[in-house]
Amino acid sequence: MNDKVNLWIVGSIGIDDIKTRDEDRKDLLGGSVTYCCAAASFFARTGAVGVVGTDFPEEFMNRYRRFGIDLAGLQRKEGSTFRWAGAYSDNMIDRTTLKTELGVFGEFSPELPESYRDAEFVLLGNIQPDLQLHVLGQARNAKFVAMDTMNLWLDIARESLLKVIAKVQMISLNDEEARLLTGLYHIRDCAEAILKMGPKYVAIKKGEHGSLLFSSEGVSIVPAYPVKAVTDPTGAGDTYAGAFMGYLAQKGRSDMKTLREALLYGSVMASFGVESFSLERLETLTSAEIEARLAELKAMIAF
Amino acid sequence: MNDKVNLWIVGSIGIDDIKTRDEDRKDLLGGSVTYCCAAASFFARTGAVGVVGTDFPEEFMNRYRRFGIDLAGLQRKEGSTFRWAGAYSDNMIDRTTLKTELGVFGEFSPELPESYRDAEFVLLGNIQPDLQLHVLGQARNAKFVAMDTMNLWLDIARESLLKVIAKVQMISLNDEEARLLTGLYHIRDCAEAILKMGPKYVAIKKGEHGSLLFSSEGVSIVPAYPVKAVTDPTGAGDTYAGAFMGYLAQKGRSDMKTLREALLYGSVMASFGVESFSLERLETLTSAEIEARLAELKAMIAF
Repeated sequence: MNDKVNLWIVGSIGIDDIKTRDEDRKDLLGGSVTYCCAAASFFARTGAVGVVGTDFPEEFMNRYRRFGIDLAGLQRKEGSTFRWAGAYSDNMIDRTTLKTELGVFGEFSPELPESYRDAEFVLLGNIQPDLQLHVLGQARNAKFVAMDTMNLWLDIARESLLKVIAKVQMISLNDEEARLLTGLYHIRDCAEAILKMGPKYVAIKKGEHGSLLFSSEGVSIVPAYPVKAVTDPTGAGDTYAGAFMGYLAQKGRSDMKTLREALLYGSVMASFGVESFSLERLETLTSAEIEARLAELKAMIAF
Repeated sequence: MNDKVNLWIVGSIGIDDIKTRDEDRKDLLGGSVTYCCAAASFFARTGAVGVVGTDFPEEFMNRYRRFGIDLAGLQRKEGSTFRWAGAYSDNMIDRTTLKTELGVFGEFSPELPESYRDAEFVLLGNIQPDLQLHVLGQARNAKFVAMDTMNLWLDIARESLLKVIAKVQMISLNDEEARLLTGLYHIRDCAEAILKMGPKYVAIKKGEHGSLLFSSEGVSIVPAYPVKAVTDPTGAGDTYAGAFMGYLAQKGRSDMKTLREALLYGSVMASFGVESFSLERLETLTSAEIEARLAELKAMIAF
């Protein structure tokens, strides 16, 4: 566990209760770091930067370890782990938050272990932008930094958020966030405005409909793999982002060709992820299954 | 105007009032036949099968003629043309119907002119299924028939609708319609069930997110071209379907490779269509513009 990671990911670690049309599950391992790191671990040596409470089960730590995730960046603090509960509507898209208890995540101050500081690839999950800046400032050699965010920070920490945006190579947002950030309406206008804020790439997430990647080189339409049945969509975007960054880190480059391939791996991994709750599907997933679905997805968009 | 058509399209012809966030337009040339035929006319000799009232302006007839649409199948009846009024919400997706006055369309009994009866390509727009059957029964040589429908017929004319479905090569529906038709939930399950009802191809329409084409040969993900600004989405699906069928009719075949190319032309034509109200953008559209956008769309999905 002491070899250097080539990708680190900061964000939330949570214990989730999730209700869907068909099931009601409690005490699931969740949070953005969980989904991102698990997906990334299929491709690259990945380090987790997050915080858990004293109630965080050792079994969850072992699940991280079985993915080969480096845990040097994981802090354990006195108190409760972040807990979230949500319920999905029948369409498996709209959801209601039933509970948010920040616990130790409310006081999270991410610190990079020495073994992460030279990593070239970084994924800043959705945390307070000042914390994103703080932890990114500890990186000595970051070449490709991607970030996620949410409406809340646009409302209450816009200045800090703009500073992070200016420092990253890529940002992913949904259409509503893109509009809030820019004050513009049409998605292509939004993306062009965000490109001027610093990032070389802007990904507009459309959930089950895939995403659009904007850059000065043009637009890429990234398809979602049409899954047969969604069991739990929680973490799909994180699984997508984690696999994307893991693939870049594995290749050690971020040219457009590599990026596009990484986007397809992101779609594929997310499609597996939603077939189960938490990491359950990823825990049984093989490279052969990944490659088979990638080939299938490529055939679906080969015109 | 007396040469034989190789594609005919039956459906509604209407005069629309449309309100969007930015504009409020009245007395627009609309209806499914209008959009479908205009788009198809870029590719094939297309015949319109529909009905208008005595109030239908000669100027609208001239607009059809300028597209080169064959009008032998267009009936003019004593009474008012079908009129529809709708208002779009700001997202340009959700819309409210403000007025539906069937007029002569309420008594529509489509008849195929002799010059259409040997056409190999047919697009049955959304009309009462018994009328779809009636007019299809007059075709002597139909090789590839595509159909559209709506929830209403699923509710009040399901038996007739199933008879039409059993006779066509392709059906297009949105996810809600596919669920209503099959009683199933997951889209891939729905599509598989519909394939067993007769059609070789099932297109699931997702509006601005493109569509999925299901067949025994697998799934194709059909991207929508990301337009810079949508002026009026009315008729986008019809423009898409018309261009698709027009391209097939031009090529005179319907193998998978031709189908996939036709789907991309459909996306491209629909993307132009929504840039204006009614046919306004299509009226200035050139082949060079179509080919340029097709190349652009292909580049966006080339992985």
